[in-house]
Amino acid sequence: MKILKLDTETKKDLLNNLLKRSPNQYDTYMETVSLIIEDVRANGNHALFAYTKQFDKADISKDNILVTEAEYEEAYQTVAPEVIEVIKKAAINIKNYHAKQKQYSWFDSEPNGVILGQKVTPLSSVGVYVPGGKAAYPSSVLMNVLPARVAGVKEVIMVTPPDRDGKIYAGTLVAAREAGVDRIYKAGGAQAIAALAFGTESVPKVDKIVGPGNIYVALAKKAVYGHVSIDSIAGPSEILVLADETANPRYIAADLLSQAEHDELASAILVTTSSEVAEQVLKEVEGFTAILSRKEIIKKSLDNYGYILIASNIEEAIAAANEIASEHLEILTKDPFQIMTKIENAGAIFLGEYSSEPLGDYFAGPNHVLPTNGTAKFFSPLSVDDFIKKSSIISYSKEALEPIHKDIVTFAEAEGLTAHANSISVRFEEKGEEC
Amino acid sequence: MKILKLDTETKKDLLNNLLKRSPNQYDTYMETVSLIIEDVRANGNHALFAYTKQFDKADISKDNILVTEAEYEEAYQTVAPEVIEVIKKAAINIKNYHAKQKQYSWFDSEPNGVILGQKVTPLSSVGVYVPGGKAAYPSSVLMNVLPARVAGVKEVIMVTPPDRDGKIYAGTLVAAREAGVDRIYKAGGAQAIAALAFGTESVPKVDKIVGPGNIYVALAKKAVYGHVSIDSIAGPSEILVLADETANPRYIAADLLSQAEHDELASAILVTTSSEVAEQVLKEVEGFTAILSRKEIIKKSLDNYGYILIASNIEEAIAAANEIASEHLEILTKDPFQIMTKIENAGAIFLGEYSSEPLGDYFAGPNHVLPTNGTAKFFSPLSVDDFIKKSSIISYSKEALEPIHKDIVTFAEAEGLTAHANSISVRFEEKGEEC
Repeated sequence: MKILKLDTETKKDLLNNLLKRSPNQYDTYMETVSLIIEDVRANGNHALFAYTKQFDKADISKDNILVTEAEYEEAYQTVAPEVIEVIKKAAINIKNYHAKQKQYSWFDSEPNGVILGQKVTPLSSVGVYVPGGKAAYPSSVLMNVLPARVAGVKEVIMVTPPDRDGKIYAGTLVAAREAGVDRIYKAGGAQAIAALAFGTESVPKVDKIVGPGNIYVALAKKAVYGHVSIDSIAGPSEILVLADETANPRYIAADLLSQAEHDELASAILVTTSSEVAEQVLKEVEGFTAILSRKEIIKKSLDNYGYILIASNIEEAIAAANEIASEHLEILTKDPFQIMTKIENAGAIFLGEYSSEPLGDYFAGPNHVLPTNGTAKFFSPLSVDDFIKKSSIISYSKEALEPIHKDIVTFAEAEGLTAHANSISVRFEEKGEEC
Repeated sequence: MKILKLDTETKKDLLNNLLKRSPNQYDTYMETVSLIIEDVRANGNHALFAYTKQFDKADISKDNILVTEAEYEEAYQTVAPEVIEVIKKAAINIKNYHAKQKQYSWFDSEPNGVILGQKVTPLSSVGVYVPGGKAAYPSSVLMNVLPARVAGVKEVIMVTPPDRDGKIYAGTLVAAREAGVDRIYKAGGAQAIAALAFGTESVPKVDKIVGPGNIYVALAKKAVYGHVSIDSIAGPSEILVLADETANPRYIAADLLSQAEHDELASAILVTTSSEVAEQVLKEVEGFTAILSRKEIIKKSLDNYGYILIASNIEEAIAAANEIASEHLEILTKDPFQIMTKIENAGAIFLGEYSSEPLGDYFAGPNHVLPTNGTAKFFSPLSVDDFIKKSSIISYSKEALEPIHKDIVTFAEAEGLTAHANSISVRFEEKGEEC
């Protein structure tokens, strides 16, 4: 981690450096992924189970692909009771927050018989991907499943790779049960994504696939987009802390490190107007790193993608935050809500010194599945919106159509579409003949 | 067009047949598209202008890539005044409908200092693709541009391929001006999509690309997804008419044909409970086809993708409509609103005998950019939602964080993320030491 002056050149280098982490850079894996997808699409279970044997070393068949009730029970015995309690509490907060995102059907009518509206319908079925082994986070299960349940999706199924013994991580099972998953299929990687997109004898085709995964999973989701819907393609995690001279350097350092520990590609950036804060943060980062369990990951992440940038003034700092469009943005200034009004691009905005990012990761309620790698410029956090779709509603009476029907005929004829014109004029042909 | 009994086998054949039209089937063009994209990304204007010369036969340079004020003026002289009037009227209806889709930022607070919310921000810049020549529809310009303007997008630019003389179709220019496009760049095909996704010396990089195009454009949009956002990838147009014995066969026939004339891949399907209606519709279709200007297209479309299906009862008819998930659905029954409650999958739903589909194409106000080819199961009509993004808002006071901070630490430690735990506990360390 290094202290740099925030100038145009530094910003350009930083943005190019962060983009190196994008899954868009890994298209070389695409050939392998395409082969797996085509194989599962053509050969169903046979291909799915062969890849599970090859990649996960597990013997899975149509008879043991589903997690059983006994496995759930075992998981509840394995996970510590206080962790189960926290999962339950977090689930309540997440449900409450997402309930506020619900959108309703609406219509508008005019007394001449015009009715226009929008019908909201939940997706029928959703598949949630959950990574296996040490990359399995119970919090992530809650964040992906609960918005679908709040939206009213009829069937929410999960796929997750088994270990060599065909077992699923206990924390995943508990979180899945608490979130209300209907069934869990033991399958992972690109082959599981293909199974959800096209269906196999055992795994049903779904309408949408969500959830984090490695590069193979990300590329497979991109490949099946259009056949089914997907959530946005996530890159490595990142945080940007925007701080002035009033911020506590110890808190900033702890928050930067909580991001850096995610993986070696994670990015932690401080943009501050105070060079004193910058110096102290650097010192605190070194102190904390020495005592943290994931120090090797942290060091690599900070070396490659950690920045402390000193801005000449707060406007310059805000402009940089908007250009970087970070997944997580903490505002640690004397007037965080005023600064927030100027933020255009960020996945989640944390305001004030008691709103540290892990509060959002686990507990507060808003979704922790957020746009990464600059995509906060155009993507949104995962939400109930992702699990509904809309249909336009159009109903006109004869009284409403008659005065405008010639306008539509004019427009259709101008576009050379005479059958379109005919579809309108046929409704008034008797009248026309009477005139 | 043929009359068939609606049974499981027929439905399966129909669904497979319709899916043949999907842009997902044309991945063989992808190599060409990828080469064009990489070239424009690496070589900017130079590549863009070379492809414009190659494909559109036009000499475009940085000096004449933008449509000039003189060209707009000429367009207003070229387009018939009554067409300009209808464009203006339609624009008002489209704006009014989309204004009702606007979403607002919200927050919720608790007296202990918890503030949670969602900030809505319009995208900063959007690029609209408009096809050239005879595929240019002024109505499509309105439908793609106006929702972006209603959303509050700062900059809405357009790309459209020029003819050999470097000119743009007058109807496109008038519709663009009426919709409020900021600038029009003379560029088309995959090269124009690449220019919008990565920027060139002349064309700015945008946040999102929308608008219809040929297979090269569709594949290019798919390829740049993730670098920028895109609208859903559209396939050929389609209509499904759901009719009982009360429906007017002449109206049904005219409406089916208005869809069939779009292109040879368009699909027109009638599902009816009345074999009498089925017979009469077939007769009317033949009568109309003989006198319509686009009869060659219509014949091919109906031969390949036209169906008249007889259902045993209305429930069976509704189930088929939901499985087919048509772009446009007309309900011509004695109780269309009751039937509508059972419709899960459709882009736009037209109710009653005066709500023919061209009313929605041109005039009523709801968007005519709709999910095609079964994607109404998970995609929505183009809307104001497509031009905004959301940021979560999280602010906790010390009072709010303190009672739950140990829960978060427990959760973080259970996931093995000690730096996450530290970011919470550091806020209470003095207190902890005092205890």
